[in-house]
Amino acid sequence: MTNQGKKVDVKELLSNITLKEKIGQLLQLTPMFLQEKAVGEITGPMGDLGIDSEDIKNCGSILGIGGAEEVMEIQKNYLENSKHKIPLLFMADVIHGYRTIFPIPLALGCSWDEEIVEETSRVAAREASAGGVHVTFSPMVDLVRDARWGRVMESTGEDPYLNSIFAKAAVRGYQGDDLSKDGNIAACVKHFAAYGAPEGGREYNTVDISERMLREYYLPAYKAAIEEGCKMLMTSFNTVNSVPSSGNEWLMREVLRNEWSYDGVVISDWAAIKELIPHGVAEDEREAAEKAMKAGVDIEMMTGCYPQWLEKLIEEGKISIELIDQAVFRILKLKEELGLFADPYKGLSKDREASLNLCEEHRNIARKAAAASMVLLKNDGSILPFSKETGKVAVIGPYADEQSILGWWSWQGKAEDAVSLKQGIINKIGSEKVVAAKGCDIIDSDDDKIVQAVELAKTADVIVLALGEAADMSGEGASRAFIKLSGKQEQLADEILKLNKPTAIVLFNGRPIEITELYGKAPAVLEAWFPGTEGGNAAADILFGDKNPTGRLSMSFPYTVGQVPVYYNEFNTGRPKIDDSNTERYVSHYSDIPNAPLLPFGYGLSYTTFKYENFMISDDTLTEDSSIAASVMIKNTGSVDGEEIVQLYIRDISGSVVRPVKELKGYKKIYLKAGEERQVSFEIREDMLRFYNSKMELKSEKGKFNVMVGPNSKELMTLEFKLI
Amino acid sequence: MTNQGKKVDVKELLSNITLKEKIGQLLQLTPMFLQEKAVGEITGPMGDLGIDSEDIKNCGSILGIGGAEEVMEIQKNYLENSKHKIPLLFMADVIHGYRTIFPIPLALGCSWDEEIVEETSRVAAREASAGGVHVTFSPMVDLVRDARWGRVMESTGEDPYLNSIFAKAAVRGYQGDDLSKDGNIAACVKHFAAYGAPEGGREYNTVDISERMLREYYLPAYKAAIEEGCKMLMTSFNTVNSVPSSGNEWLMREVLRNEWSYDGVVISDWAAIKELIPHGVAEDEREAAEKAMKAGVDIEMMTGCYPQWLEKLIEEGKISIELIDQAVFRILKLKEELGLFADPYKGLSKDREASLNLCEEHRNIARKAAAASMVLLKNDGSILPFSKETGKVAVIGPYADEQSILGWWSWQGKAEDAVSLKQGIINKIGSEKVVAAKGCDIIDSDDDKIVQAVELAKTADVIVLALGEAADMSGEGASRAFIKLSGKQEQLADEILKLNKPTAIVLFNGRPIEITELYGKAPAVLEAWFPGTEGGNAAADILFGDKNPTGRLSMSFPYTVGQVPVYYNEFNTGRPKIDDSNTERYVSHYSDIPNAPLLPFGYGLSYTTFKYENFMISDDTLTEDSSIAASVMIKNTGSVDGEEIVQLYIRDISGSVVRPVKELKGYKKIYLKAGEERQVSFEIREDMLRFYNSKMELKSEKGKFNVMVGPNSKELMTLEFKLI
Repeated sequence: MTNQGKKVDVKELLSNITLKEKIGQLLQLTPMFLQEKAVGEITGPMGDLGIDSEDIKNCGSILGIGGAEEVMEIQKNYLENSKHKIPLLFMADVIHGYRTIFPIPLALGCSWDEEIVEETSRVAAREASAGGVHVTFSPMVDLVRDARWGRVMESTGEDPYLNSIFAKAAVRGYQGDDLSKDGNIAACVKHFAAYGAPEGGREYNTVDISERMLREYYLPAYKAAIEEGCKMLMTSFNTVNSVPSSGNEWLMREVLRNEWSYDGVVISDWAAIKELIPHGVAEDEREAAEKAMKAGVDIEMMTGCYPQWLEKLIEEGKISIELIDQAVFRILKLKEELGLFADPYKGLSKDREASLNLCEEHRNIARKAAAASMVLLKNDGSILPFSKETGKVAVIGPYADEQSILGWWSWQGKAEDAVSLKQGIINKIGSEKVVAAKGCDIIDSDDDKIVQAVELAKTADVIVLALGEAADMSGEGASRAFIKLSGKQEQLADEILKLNKPTAIVLFNGRPIEITELYGKAPAVLEAWFPGTEGGNAAADILFGDKNPTGRLSMSFPYTVGQVPVYYNEFNTGRPKIDDSNTERYVSHYSDIPNAPLLPFGYGLSYTTFKYENFMISDDTLTEDSSIAASVMIKNTGSVDGEEIVQLYIRDISGSVVRPVKELKGYKKIYLKAGEERQVSFEIREDMLRFYNSKMELKSEKGKFNVMVGPNSKELMTLEFKLI
Repeated sequence: MTNQGKKVDVKELLSNITLKEKIGQLLQLTPMFLQEKAVGEITGPMGDLGIDSEDIKNCGSILGIGGAEEVMEIQKNYLENSKHKIPLLFMADVIHGYRTIFPIPLALGCSWDEEIVEETSRVAAREASAGGVHVTFSPMVDLVRDARWGRVMESTGEDPYLNSIFAKAAVRGYQGDDLSKDGNIAACVKHFAAYGAPEGGREYNTVDISERMLREYYLPAYKAAIEEGCKMLMTSFNTVNSVPSSGNEWLMREVLRNEWSYDGVVISDWAAIKELIPHGVAEDEREAAEKAMKAGVDIEMMTGCYPQWLEKLIEEGKISIELIDQAVFRILKLKEELGLFADPYKGLSKDREASLNLCEEHRNIARKAAAASMVLLKNDGSILPFSKETGKVAVIGPYADEQSILGWWSWQGKAEDAVSLKQGIINKIGSEKVVAAKGCDIIDSDDDKIVQAVELAKTADVIVLALGEAADMSGEGASRAFIKLSGKQEQLADEILKLNKPTAIVLFNGRPIEITELYGKAPAVLEAWFPGTEGGNAAADILFGDKNPTGRLSMSFPYTVGQVPVYYNEFNTGRPKIDDSNTERYVSHYSDIPNAPLLPFGYGLSYTTFKYENFMISDDTLTEDSSIAASVMIKNTGSVDGEEIVQLYIRDISGSVVRPVKELKGYKKIYLKAGEERQVSFEIREDMLRFYNSKMELKSEKGKFNVMVGPNSKELMTLEFKLI
């Protein structure tokens, strides 16, 4: 009934199947089409897609399903009706965990810890694989600079270097060293390309950037994932150089296939092939199919352009059969690599599901990842950490005792499994000392609840104020023009802060939010993001000092929404603003706010302090064959042990094109006991200095450079060297 | 002592002057360098510029001076010390008038009236010429989409077609039919290129757009000015494709000189050549000089890179003498065309200055232009126009009796010559019925003044509420992250509107401001912009019905700053938002505000109403050689006579690249008596359908098009035709 145990010769298989069967491999549907009731009826969804039961019978992959029992049944039914017993490929959005939910990717980006990203990806793969998922639509590596865009939560941030490191780590974590092994799943890097740059931060909006900007900032992380062996790539919804990615031959053939030699599967995003029509580059589904296939999109997700038109396009000679064969070959090869011909039910196990999902080990990893992702933004007078011996703790705010802290795209995650902040604090110091009140809702509320919360807070010794965005206020389709805390949350904060008690604000949100006023007033602010299943425990670990915070922002926090896009690796202008005052009119500035974001890339505090001294370079000239060692002495000058993320930036002073004022080129996470010091050293090589020059060649240019080290992108020590 | 009366052979002159003298022609300084005290001292400003007294002696042009007496003296002294008697060229920022100040360019853009722009430019030239100005740094034709950028006030708006029409009109107005005639001055189109697209709306910030965006949206208006014979062009401060314009060979040589065959003078913006250093494309002034000269920048404004380094660069063979000769030739030729060799004091006349400046004719033109530029944004219940027979009128607000209504870049204009709103109303209905109170200041105020103003308003029959931005809150160097009314103005408006009296808000501002809340509450809103010298009279003409408003917005008014950039000629997305609700998550939208601006491009009300009927096209197919007539019947359905601006838009449904949802392709201003109707017809030709296709060729593509007509870019009737 299956090819079970057999090694399949993909080329031979390809030569044995009909064109119709081939085209079926290119179609991806949701599971509903394969459930019994749908088969045979060309109405409803099938009619909308213009497909028939034969297409469904031939369909090569399914998206959005998880659960051993269901997957097993669908695969079984499918194979029973399948002539060649080519197993279905099951794909799903396992974005930051499957059942055990980890922090959102933007939070993970703030960990600056590739091991954590690899580990969480591995755990997600293990759980998802038991539930029947073969491919996850992750990692998303879209570079992001605009906090209005809701989907920044799914990116690791604004830096191409950091994004590339995380891209590779996620691919390693998902795919492991052998894709055919149980527990390993294929990664799908997305969204190729530059989906993170929609104009005005408006979801799905036009992307218009120069080719140099595309290549230098946006493309590196996709390329990194591919270099790490990522098996699949998803097109983006947006235009690249005025053509939507799913029909963009330059992007998908010239850059991806030819320049980068990518031989994996390309899948469209949901309905993106048919969307070539509203985009206005295809008159109808026929032209959409033609453009997408020519561009090299192998799998069509949830529209029916390929099944309806590819045969006719081949008959007319508009599409060559070779193109189809190449696409089908890639898909079959992936199924083979996943071991699905050998075992179409590979990894599927209700028992393993039960034992893996939310197991203690996975929860521990989730807790570690969440704590590593949280960023201490302010801690005046070192009011944090609170002592576990403290008196009464009042947890106030809409997130005080909220379990919906998983964040967007946590599909199989359940809020009921999550540890709320209040519960986390109770777990830490016992329930008798903890009281909680909402104060207000995230969206709106009457003032009564605020009054009650303030009364409760008055009785406490320390206050934790838990504010934020609702989970559905970020994620896909959730762009916002206003990025301040919604509803009456700021008013609640004002009233609580007026009590002048030791108060720490804990923020739950999926994007950098506009907290400038609040930040000015509050003594302590902890950015918890959407921390996932173990969020409350992780936050309590930090609030009560069991974990010394190490998170560093991987995306700038804007001063106000009128400042976006704002990011650290910008270009200098001809009239740079030198000081922070706004007294000089004719410089590049806003006359009513600072140029700098409220909190810069790389920023984050620790419970201890680190001193940077003796920054030096081994040589002040560099050649193509030599390297320079840049070293700095870091001392833990506080009273507790802690980890510091030492950051290295480089600036090219002058080039054939403008160059950023700084670029992250390295970082090291070091652990220092209180009072301990250690020298940290970075190697600087010529290849780190390359950029797309005026001729669009990736080359370095001789001349002066600055090398900078420091605890974030703003507070830096600077030395100069020359490339000769 | 001069070449007076002589016709000069520029080529011969060029062959007679030394390299040092040639390089002098390329230098532009402020007048202070030529005033006696400066000569001979290589300190202070001269030292900063790295120039010496010989350079000053050879300097070819002066900027920022006006006034017959002073100019005459400087020219005289200069020529006395000049071997070849090459007259100085005097340039100045005559942006929207010289002594008689017209509305700011953004307001003039809202007139949709090229004759008015031509006329105001002609008057400005006449006054400026008498004061010794030979070249004005106008028109600025930078396309603008971001209201944060302060310099939107100097642009005519967001549309390439409209900007091109105004660019041509201004050039005709300034230059006339013969540049050597008194009263005509050379125009200088600026800022080449795309200065209006700084990221984040932050002045002088990086511009990063695709070449297609550059060519299709940003370049057409510069090209239009050049095609109209514009004699000079100014580089922009920003980067174009990662290279600042002043050192951008591709832009300045390949596009401007080669493709467009421009043979006029190119001047840098203020210090822009030296600013190649902070931009990071030149290591020092030597490299800056080399790059700028190679790019083809003829005149260096206010830095000393050319005088210090060009000789050495020639000696070293890095710059050819031919490049210098070409630049000097262009400058000398312009001096010749201006008739300056024949008469270096051409046009200069204290008597003409006295008789022209602010003369009645010029004031009348200013009044007409101001009234034509104002846009009636709302008029619920037709509360406007007020009757001249009304009882008491209270004029309230910081702009109630304010003469500083000239706007930025009105250099020679004096607020004391301007007619305030209160004065304009008094001029209209007499002083006995008019009372006024400030209520608050623009920036800040105590609440007492509000209370007093409200008390005064209570005594009135109708209220005019005059609010706005200070003039220095827009213009160069005045980007803002917050674009709402500042200070307590909204509070003042709230209190006044609570009185429920017939109230019209009149706005004075240099950019589209965020008035969404106020707009919802106020019964009538008139956008007066910075209306210039006759602003108060013009506003009174409208408020009391002597002028039926005809202005239409040439730049969208954003719903909120978190929506920018927002403009009408955007691209469709793959997931366009269909209805105004935010119930569908997965469409291109903001989840908290509409996609549409508060007020769209082309929008503006009249005191009468117009009905559009019988929209038809003469044919539904178009060929390269044929044309289609699109006609519509417009009827004045109101009770007063009025003018309507009938607008024609076209949409290309599908192309090789994405195409805008609509593009303005024609408009007609028609006058209709009450009850009158008339057919308005537009010709549609193939050349109107061209765009930069996927191969970057400017061509039309066969297929379906929509043609739309209506009173603004939103309320449109649509028909379809095909290009075959």
